[in-house]
Amino acid sequence: MTSAQPHSPMEYQHATGTPIQPCRAENSPGYVTLRPEFTDGLADLAGFDRVWLIYYFHRAAAAQMRVIPYRDTVPHGLFATRVPARPNPIGMSCVRLLNIEGNILRLGAVDILDGAPLLDIKPYVPQYDNYPVQRCGWLDTVPDRPVVADARFERAERPS
Amino acid sequence: MTSAQPHSPMEYQHATGTPIQPCRAENSPGYVTLRPEFTDGLADLAGFDRVWLIYYFHRAAAAQMRVIPYRDTVPHGLFATRVPARPNPIGMSCVRLLNIEGNILRLGAVDILDGAPLLDIKPYVPQYDNYPVQRCGWLDTVPDRPVVADARFERAERPS
Repeated sequence: MTSAQPHSPMEYQHATGTPIQPCRAENSPGYVTLRPEFTDGLADLAGFDRVWLIYYFHRAAAAQMRVIPYRDTVPHGLFATRVPARPNPIGMSCVRLLNIEGNILRLGAVDILDGAPLLDIKPYVPQYDNYPVQRCGWLDTVPDRPVVADARFERAERPS
Repeated sequence: MTSAQPHSPMEYQHATGTPIQPCRAENSPGYVTLRPEFTDGLADLAGFDRVWLIYYFHRAAAAQMRVIPYRDTVPHGLFATRVPARPNPIGMSCVRLLNIEGNILRLGAVDILDGAPLLDIKPYVPQYDNYPVQRCGWLDTVPDRPVVADARFERAERPS
């Protein structure tokens, strides 16, 4: 799956300091370079304000079933969080689409590590992606303070 | 990646007649059975009203760079649509979470084919997943009529 589309060079080299979610990454530009054979599939995408990027968490540590997420101080079940250390380490981020030139997408609000292999691009459609909810689990009980990522869910560097 | 989590039996056996997106699947229940070793990762998830299911479009045809999506009558670039015939056929659906018992999740608003291998479960968090947009591309120009899927993006059955 990582071979279907190329790496997407972004701004962040390591988890520490990376913004958590596009809503906290407003000043973080980035870009995606698509394999040329997929360029034709970008037709009509420029009319959308935002796109979902689906990507591989290539720097994530092994999955843990209980994690202390960045926004809390106590453990929660992994699937009740968005931390990257998952059985299938797949991320999804709703980023701003600024511009498309050929096979290059210029993006805003990017919360993704540099080199994350891109798996898919989908248009962001509020009708499909916005749903009213009453309850948001443990996130309803924690303060909405600014947070950035740290190294807790990053795999160790291999000695070179 | 299909081995990390088990099949998720749902209601729909073929694309034809399957609702498009959870917003059109309000009366479609479904469930997910997680591998027992992942059950502990479901802790605290029951407090969320909705979850993202990330899954493999296991019945999708080969990728096409231009497609006529269900909601229009003219072709669009694949990445400007949500059709399943993609280079990496990964789907994402924001379904209702009704109940969790052990490793079984009871769900509502399910628009997924029976047997789709589940890749990930993430909590639905409006702060991360709801963004106001001004433009929604070609979808702004087509009527919002009720539609269901048909067989156009389904791969042919293999003779048994």
